Amino acid sequence: MQKTGAGAPALLTDHYELTMISAALRDGTAHRSSVFEVFARRLPQGRRYGVVAGTGRLLEQLAAFTFHPDEVDFLRRTGVVDDATAEWLAGFRFSGDVDGYAEGELFFPNSPILTVSGTFAECVILETLILSVLNHDCAIAAAAARMVTAARGRPLIEMGSRRAHEEAAVASARAAYLAGFGSTSNLAAGLRYGIPTAGTAAHAFTLLHDDEKAAFASQVAALGEQTTLLVDTYDISQGIRNAIAVAGPGLRAVRIDSGDLSVLAAQSRALLDELGAPDVKIVVSGDLDEYAIAALAAEPVDVYGAGTAVVTGSGAPTAGLVYKLVEVDGRPVVKRSENKATVGGRKTAYRRHKPTGTAVEEIVLTGASAVTADPQPGDRLLQRPLVRGGEPVADLPGLEQSRTHLRDCLITIPWEGLKLSAGDPAVPVTVTAAT
Amino acid sequence: MQKTGAGAPALLTDHYELTMISAALRDGTAHRSSVFEVFARRLPQGRRYGVVAGTGRLLEQLAAFTFHPDEVDFLRRTGVVDDATAEWLAGFRFSGDVDGYAEGELFFPNSPILTVSGTFAECVILETLILSVLNHDCAIAAAAARMVTAARGRPLIEMGSRRAHEEAAVASARAAYLAGFGSTSNLAAGLRYGIPTAGTAAHAFTLLHDDEKAAFASQVAALGEQTTLLVDTYDISQGIRNAIAVAGPGLRAVRIDSGDLSVLAAQSRALLDELGAPDVKIVVSGDLDEYAIAALAAEPVDVYGAGTAVVTGSGAPTAGLVYKLVEVDGRPVVKRSENKATVGGRKTAYRRHKPTGTAVEEIVLTGASAVTADPQPGDRLLQRPLVRGGEPVADLPGLEQSRTHLRDCLITIPWEGLKLSAGDPAVPVTVTAAT
Repeated sequence: MQKTGAGAPALLTDHYELTMISAALRDGTAHRSSVFEVFARRLPQGRRYGVVAGTGRLLEQLAAFTFHPDEVDFLRRTGVVDDATAEWLAGFRFSGDVDGYAEGELFFPNSPILTVSGTFAECVILETLILSVLNHDCAIAAAAARMVTAARGRPLIEMGSRRAHEEAAVASARAAYLAGFGSTSNLAAGLRYGIPTAGTAAHAFTLLHDDEKAAFASQVAALGEQTTLLVDTYDISQGIRNAIAVAGPGLRAVRIDSGDLSVLAAQSRALLDELGAPDVKIVVSGDLDEYAIAALAAEPVDVYGAGTAVVTGSGAPTAGLVYKLVEVDGRPVVKRSENKATVGGRKTAYRRHKPTGTAVEEIVLTGASAVTADPQPGDRLLQRPLVRGGEPVADLPGLEQSRTHLRDCLITIPWEGLKLSAGDPAVPVTVTAAT
Repeated sequence: MQKTGAGAPALLTDHYELTMISAALRDGTAHRSSVFEVFARRLPQGRRYGVVAGTGRLLEQLAAFTFHPDEVDFLRRTGVVDDATAEWLAGFRFSGDVDGYAEGELFFPNSPILTVSGTFAECVILETLILSVLNHDCAIAAAAARMVTAARGRPLIEMGSRRAHEEAAVASARAAYLAGFGSTSNLAAGLRYGIPTAGTAAHAFTLLHDDEKAAFASQVAALGEQTTLLVDTYDISQGIRNAIAVAGPGLRAVRIDSGDLSVLAAQSRALLDELGAPDVKIVVSGDLDEYAIAALAAEPVDVYGAGTAVVTGSGAPTAGLVYKLVEVDGRPVVKRSENKATVGGRKTAYRRHKPTGTAVEEIVLTGASAVTADPQPGDRLLQRPLVRGGEPVADLPGLEQSRTHLRDCLITIPWEGLKLSAGDPAVPVTVTAAT
């Protein structure tokens, strides 16, 4: 499976991953059986949950993770690796296993959201790519999920592409859709992932024309009345009058992109109703984050357009996930300076629920304790096989399923967990070391 | 020129750019001669300057900005564009002009850093890509430049790839190098841009081995004594003793990645000296930003490794640049709700300097005033041709030249401008409208 629309992933890797492999190949430790885990030591300041996102993108890139001869040549020529390592890289293909939380699953500090097992060399070589994909996509999905909660069922359009790196923008659109956004402005996300795309018009389109009415007439002529006219280029009230005069009451929506949106939404609604256009919807945009969206809950807004805050993770642009070696040849390993919550050994994770379905605890077990664990009714095993022997397992959930899964998961967390204010993680995680 | 290692750029575009083109093609305004400008209304909170970065990446993608038949088919099939627009897209190639500030140039609020002229359709279609590239790269370069200043001549390694989207990581490495970082951990940045790559080892490498000495011996055997040993996996003092015992006093460096770095740097220096290894350098890393780097100025640190703070723009992950239509068929246009500093019409920008070389003012002139402007000695014209008739001009500066240019520019700003504390833009910008 070749990755669509972006480069080969193997060199999206830190220099030291390959020098470590070089040394480990030479001393034989490269082949030691190893387990690495991805987890977050903490959530971003005050956040109550994390959202697993990016797994689908990661598996796609894992399948394409091979070294092109030009890449190997570059590494050899610049002295990053020696001949033996160059040869190993030229034949590299991941042949290990990956297990992980489903995309769309919630996570909390110390949740082992991804587990990679295989030889040391084949696991460590994936570190940078795995963390890049997950740290980015999880950050965006968590911010987007809070906006979806704040919007209380009103649809959201992701329109932040211009405020993010051009490829990060595509991944952001995917993560926001996963989190419950209804559509994106990003066309590449439409092509690659089948996400519905949407758009209105920019102020430039109005400025291009001789007057606002001419711009509106042109847009309606091309796109039909089921379009959204941007009414705040000059005067908003006049803009709305012009919109209805040109398109009639069958127009889909008007968009307001500036000013005090709560006042303007109410005034615009009143004016539209007065003009006999009660079915024309109101789209608002302009630096909306979860708090601004929540503040508009009582106003007659029909659709939110969110941009910068989504693609920058609304103050937390990276998820703080780390990739740690936890087991070598069956023996748990741990860095001495880690905080006490970090324990070595491969982990098994359950989430425990009340009979009502509310999540009360996440239980992370290691070593022997995992084997002897006695699941209770309402416990849900959080990890599932993703890759076996280097090949993706059959029937991995698609983006739509992951989207549904997140919606279902958010229903299970205690109600405080959905508050936008700063607080503790919604579900405590207990890590129990092997006994 | 085909872009290296990343996808085709044409669909990295907002839906509405193409629907606007659809409408404008139908009513004939698509062909109106237009000028768009990129500028920031403000700098991120308290920042004193911005850094132009990404221009080189942008021009590379501009050359590859054509629509693949599959992309056109997608747009037609999903109803984004009609047949006439699909046909226009299939034959699209930018044929206009681009002028801009040099990569590595400083900018301030309202500096017209990029000017795109051509037909409305061929200019508007580039909006999203231009802003994605510049908003990302300028954000990273500005943060990185502050870290370089804080490091006071000590070298910096960019090692944040794992905390950013995998392709944004490559662009971040490039922007950080432009800003004066000495190297990056990102191998793709090494291959694509010729940036020196560097790396040490991870804690996993030590944990993989039976003990720390075995890990160090393996690394030195593979990479020679000109390598950097990571000494904080278990106990730092013992780690340093092990490092010198294994590698001898010819070892290049030790790295410390945790703990109170100011205390540990001093203790480590004393211990290395005591062990007869005065030439072994100390590399520190671990959530370093410009403030943490500045706080280490008095400590015996030789090299800084910075990661998360670089790739997330140290609190300002996007530069806030906008792309605005300022002229149609020679007539200045402006959105009525803009703040007063925004004026229509194509602009010309100079920076005025004292005889000592210190920049005192940036003068932005529009329309007739630009023609009659009378440059003084010490004025420097900031815009230069980048693209003519769709083709990049000859002899555009490369990354090394841009890096030098930034260093030269930073010398010219008033000394307050280099302070890390919050403040006003270092150089005021005066925008004078046509008279």
